[in-house]
Amino acid sequence: PLCLCWALGPAAATNILLLLMDDMGWGDLGAFGEPSKETPNLDQMAAEGMLFLDFYTANPLCSPSRAALLTGRLPVRNGFYTTNGHARNAYTPQDVVGGIPDSELLLPELLKKAGYTNKIIGKWHLGHQPQFHPLRHGFDEWFGSPNCHFGPYDNRERPNIPVYRDWEMVGRYYEDFKIDLKTGEANLTQLYLQEALDFISKQQASQQPFFLYWAIDATHAPVYASKQFLGTSQRGLYGDAVREIDDSVGKILKHLQQLGISEDTFVFFTSDNGAALISAPRQGGSNGPFLCGKQTTFEGGMREPAIAWWPGHIPAGGVSHQLGSVMDLFSTSLSLAGLQPPSDRQIDGIDLLPAILQGQLIDRPIFYYRGNELMAVRAGLYKAHYWTWSNSWEEHSKGIDFCPGQSVAGVTTHTQEEHTYLPLLFHLGRDPGEKYPLSFASEEYQQAVEHISGLVQQHKATLVPGQPQLNVCDQAVMNWSPPGCEKLGKCLKAPESDPQKCSWPH
Amino acid sequence: PLCLCWALGPAAATNILLLLMDDMGWGDLGAFGEPSKETPNLDQMAAEGMLFLDFYTANPLCSPSRAALLTGRLPVRNGFYTTNGHARNAYTPQDVVGGIPDSELLLPELLKKAGYTNKIIGKWHLGHQPQFHPLRHGFDEWFGSPNCHFGPYDNRERPNIPVYRDWEMVGRYYEDFKIDLKTGEANLTQLYLQEALDFISKQQASQQPFFLYWAIDATHAPVYASKQFLGTSQRGLYGDAVREIDDSVGKILKHLQQLGISEDTFVFFTSDNGAALISAPRQGGSNGPFLCGKQTTFEGGMREPAIAWWPGHIPAGGVSHQLGSVMDLFSTSLSLAGLQPPSDRQIDGIDLLPAILQGQLIDRPIFYYRGNELMAVRAGLYKAHYWTWSNSWEEHSKGIDFCPGQSVAGVTTHTQEEHTYLPLLFHLGRDPGEKYPLSFASEEYQQAVEHISGLVQQHKATLVPGQPQLNVCDQAVMNWSPPGCEKLGKCLKAPESDPQKCSWPH
Repeated sequence: PLCLCWALGPAAATNILLLLMDDMGWGDLGAFGEPSKETPNLDQMAAEGMLFLDFYTANPLCSPSRAALLTGRLPVRNGFYTTNGHARNAYTPQDVVGGIPDSELLLPELLKKAGYTNKIIGKWHLGHQPQFHPLRHGFDEWFGSPNCHFGPYDNRERPNIPVYRDWEMVGRYYEDFKIDLKTGEANLTQLYLQEALDFISKQQASQQPFFLYWAIDATHAPVYASKQFLGTSQRGLYGDAVREIDDSVGKILKHLQQLGISEDTFVFFTSDNGAALISAPRQGGSNGPFLCGKQTTFEGGMREPAIAWWPGHIPAGGVSHQLGSVMDLFSTSLSLAGLQPPSDRQIDGIDLLPAILQGQLIDRPIFYYRGNELMAVRAGLYKAHYWTWSNSWEEHSKGIDFCPGQSVAGVTTHTQEEHTYLPLLFHLGRDPGEKYPLSFASEEYQQAVEHISGLVQQHKATLVPGQPQLNVCDQAVMNWSPPGCEKLGKCLKAPESDPQKCSWPH
Repeated sequence: PLCLCWALGPAAATNILLLLMDDMGWGDLGAFGEPSKETPNLDQMAAEGMLFLDFYTANPLCSPSRAALLTGRLPVRNGFYTTNGHARNAYTPQDVVGGIPDSELLLPELLKKAGYTNKIIGKWHLGHQPQFHPLRHGFDEWFGSPNCHFGPYDNRERPNIPVYRDWEMVGRYYEDFKIDLKTGEANLTQLYLQEALDFISKQQASQQPFFLYWAIDATHAPVYASKQFLGTSQRGLYGDAVREIDDSVGKILKHLQQLGISEDTFVFFTSDNGAALISAPRQGGSNGPFLCGKQTTFEGGMREPAIAWWPGHIPAGGVSHQLGSVMDLFSTSLSLAGLQPPSDRQIDGIDLLPAILQGQLIDRPIFYYRGNELMAVRAGLYKAHYWTWSNSWEEHSKGIDFCPGQSVAGVTTHTQEEHTYLPLLFHLGRDPGEKYPLSFASEEYQQAVEHISGLVQQHKATLVPGQPQLNVCDQAVMNWSPPGCEKLGKCLKAPESDPQKCSWPH
């Protein structure tokens, strides 16, 4: 006789797949109103899953956003900020000395305890010195880079950025991993896609739960796409990159379905910060109806596209107005793995599963930081700005503009404006674009600000800032001789150490 | 035996239902990226039908837009413009003398020949003097008003606007049809909904094909909603109005389904012009990622939300990039009725059925007019501006702003700027927000402008402007004593005739 047998063991731990985009904006997906509507796979993902319309990053810049995601903590706590100036954004270029402190507990470190195999594909951005290597912070595998894919460099003043496989470099951008700045051609997204498919297959075969952090960067300037996607978008090169990502996400989800593990895999799609309007339209995306972009604490800088997908668990076609944060991905992932968050430190992320699975709305504020300055706070539909700053006049006069074509009197400011005594208040339901501050004299203003002020007091009273990691830069720490360089003949000579205060103009 | 019998006569003519919104913007629907996503019925309509992302009005103001829709012709041809000043927007306030000329052939007049019963519910706006009455221009039934629901007036300087049922008035706004300007409460959308449901039921029972033009105005300032919708939206009063409309559209579509005629009824949803940003956020909507709003020839003024729905004919979930126009609703409706458009005059609308049913992309330009001045032209993804004007400095200094919070150097201009020799050129795929004009020196610019210039020449060479209808205003023609006023005791005494040039400040 024909016999079909199933082994009915304990329920497998849920796989976790985080699809983190780089500089992709809220307005870049068809499901979020992008007028070219060129993201059929992501739109389908949203139709089968849940759309989060009020999801935020923890900082409008890449490194601190990623540090927050992986630690569940605000950058001001985990050290991913600078005190070199007031309210300055900082990240990890290759001359930065700091990185993720050993004292921080990263999501993959914790997931290990539940038997997860953890892989990062793409951009790490939490420090490139040996002590900051992702495999020293909980990841088991890595294919990608420690820094942005800027370049090409001359390997004398500045080395090209290395690409790692696990512990060792396997080449450098612009040398072994080509990016054609003229045409925008690079096949990196295809490499990252294949890495993801292979890892998922391997994990499915071994029946081990996995955490895959797919942190790709095709939408970060210099924007790139593979040859078969170049010229396929109405939106130009940036749209080509989005189309390739959309296609890749479709293939990953289909792969999960074909392997029969889509119901065992929680997938979350989001971005590290708002679209870089300064690079638009060729090298930057769209923040839809929101004000300004990357680098700012306006909605355009911090509100992110976000989709949760988990067939059989998340009701199809859901829409959530839960205020969410990349830091929640830390707590939610722990919850999926059956783990408790660390109790010895403040965790800012919350477990979103009640919002995702039961449609609950959890009351919590969103804090908008630049450096260690609390710029703004959202509670419910109200957002209070305590400081405003778009970018400096000096930079603005050079054509650097984080709010191109947008100018709201008294709101988009080119000096750092303090409003701590009378915060600027917006109602983000009536005014998602932050164009109409409420009157200071209105009762609505007074009630909302009183409520938010209470939240701020509470927040500040318990805040213990971490040691700032992004203050010191040194040419000597750049990627001259990453591990593995000998085998490739790609070791370069480092200059003398000469630590300096990092310059953070934004 | 049980016998089921069907009479198999000739196929019934397709009913036509146009849902025309007032001042609703491209960005006001969830399906178009509105962040509160409060339009589940319209989003469902889009999911079951086809979304048009590149659909335009013929003029960024109400009366000319509606005249264009019903005649299939640009306002410059059908007379719905003014020559009192250069490139001025004009409409039909109650002191305007003009209206739709008898020489124009309106859609309902033509549909009559195919046996249609035609009803207009809501705002007519093609002139309120007796010769312009909708029942003199092809409609069989009317419930609604000839003008905007502005007011309340004192009935001495200016009469309140009448509400008509068919030939006669049945009351006036603020008197018999209440609008509470303080709370925003008015039950008009419910009246318009019930009218639509009743008309549809009646037509279904009589087995006569119908054309229903549902031209409601809850989203036009003063914005209103019924009591049960007040306070239900994240977006404030404007959102309450949208929610009530969304609910009503859902009920209308469900009614068609319950009557079993949804497959025999072509439904199209769109708006007359972009959101009135000057009235936002309490009294105005959103144009999503687009520049400026109502009154302007930027995308925010003229690109409209648009959904086609016809179960069993239009494939569900379709997305079209066909450049469409409200004038196409004229030609498409004729096609649905098996009629040919008039051959004795220039028709600007095209039959969209090949785009809707077969997914064809028909190559055609979009002309953006203010008055009789061709301000801009779109061909493919390129848009050339020959004239720019947001609004005058004089008005701007009084706080009248059609582009609040938006300011694009050299583009949003407060004087009328001529660019006819070197048009400002945008690529609307890469730059839907019209923020980055292409360089005059680029090859891309030269090729695109050459192409568009050819279209402009062709257009202008054959253009025969109609007699301008919106030049003369006269207090004596206001709604003092509309037909039926005697029965109601609502006749008012008109002042002496004193014709003046109408003042068109915008």
